[in-house]
Amino acid sequence: MTSSIQLVGFDGDDTLWHSEGYYQQAYADFEAIVGEYVDLRELALRQRLLTVERANLALFGYGAKGMALSMVEAAIRVTEERISAHDLHRIVELGKQILRHPVELLEGVRAAVEAVAADYPVVLVTKGDLFHQEQKVALSGLADLFARIEIVSEKDPATYAGVLARSGVAAESFVMVGNSLRSDIAPVLELGGRAIHIPYHLLWLHEADAQFEPAPSRMAELATAADIPEVLRAWSRPSAVHDALAGRG
Amino acid sequence: MTSSIQLVGFDGDDTLWHSEGYYQQAYADFEAIVGEYVDLRELALRQRLLTVERANLALFGYGAKGMALSMVEAAIRVTEERISAHDLHRIVELGKQILRHPVELLEGVRAAVEAVAADYPVVLVTKGDLFHQEQKVALSGLADLFARIEIVSEKDPATYAGVLARSGVAAESFVMVGNSLRSDIAPVLELGGRAIHIPYHLLWLHEADAQFEPAPSRMAELATAADIPEVLRAWSRPSAVHDALAGRG
Repeated sequence: MTSSIQLVGFDGDDTLWHSEGYYQQAYADFEAIVGEYVDLRELALRQRLLTVERANLALFGYGAKGMALSMVEAAIRVTEERISAHDLHRIVELGKQILRHPVELLEGVRAAVEAVAADYPVVLVTKGDLFHQEQKVALSGLADLFARIEIVSEKDPATYAGVLARSGVAAESFVMVGNSLRSDIAPVLELGGRAIHIPYHLLWLHEADAQFEPAPSRMAELATAADIPEVLRAWSRPSAVHDALAGRG
Repeated sequence: MTSSIQLVGFDGDDTLWHSEGYYQQAYADFEAIVGEYVDLRELALRQRLLTVERANLALFGYGAKGMALSMVEAAIRVTEERISAHDLHRIVELGKQILRHPVELLEGVRAAVEAVAADYPVVLVTKGDLFHQEQKVALSGLADLFARIEIVSEKDPATYAGVLARSGVAAESFVMVGNSLRSDIAPVLELGGRAIHIPYHLLWLHEADAQFEPAPSRMAELATAADIPEVLRAWSRPSAVHDALAGRG
């Protein structure tokens, strides 16, 4: 028997609105600028870029500002201080462009969130920079549909446990919807909740590293948000086994 | 008659732990680096620095990462791209140093928060970068004393109204403690709450600009956190007028 659904969570970036494409474009532009100084086909150089970025992630956290600072520093290191102030300014601008990108909803998202919100309280659980995420939530036009908006710095089981505690909901009664197995699916399954995975066509390398016990009965994979209400309906229905037991009783 | 106190809020930076000094030191170091290229005694140049920083504040929000990016950009603009990659790297490092600064509590803070937390639920309401603030809260050793930790991007009446709604407390029953008239005192008084102002010896220019109706009966100014419990006791006591009325009734 499955527990009733009392709360549905949605991820923001690449689940409700497009995001990763802007980061990947900025990174490609960054590589083009640095590529004017050094040959980035050299594996050792690429490795050095990644080393700077990884070390900074622990200090900066996620988001466009940390990425921009990291790109500036990586460019200086990899070019051995040969890069011009003009080109470093172009790199700062790449970060600003990410912060200014338009918020475009994925197809079918508005209707899907409206349909889910008509049946359950919905919470937005989005990771990254507080200031930027708040702006994106506001620009999305979806804010009013959410009972709570939780902007978090990391999406691990402890984070979701906090979200659930603040909402007064048990993990068994929670369903999370998102594009990242690592951030949206694995930690919720680990807590005993259910999850709907909707892959996005782009994925940040950092998010690709997900390890978890598969839990087929508590997980669904969809191609589009339009099918979310149908999955929730199926999960709310008493199971066949439950039906049989109920019939007997 | 005063309402009972049901929630006490504390600001973080420069109320619980030292912060502004690290920012001011970084900015002084930044000016010294830029001063190797241009004469910052020229008012027009100083004005240009400020213009870049103010424009970026609207895009970056508060915090060390935005400040570091802003300093990099301002240095490039003000030196007309003459600044070296080496010196720009030093400026990035200034931002990193802020993010790595030790969290040192102000004198008497631990005992004061413990005393207040023994009598009332306490909430931390701190502004800035989510990732950095979470780290500071963790390093402060005070996290367990707080019923809630609210990291916000701006401290205006709407923000405090949200904090109060999430805690289910009316503004009349809320007391906020902080060092900034602009961020901690004025918005809470505007909502009808009470506030304890504890000035810090350094103040960011941006925080200095506070306009509000004075409300002497709902505001106290203290030199040190040690006196907070005494003010709360006084505010919890039925007033003389109330005593007289009660005696009559």
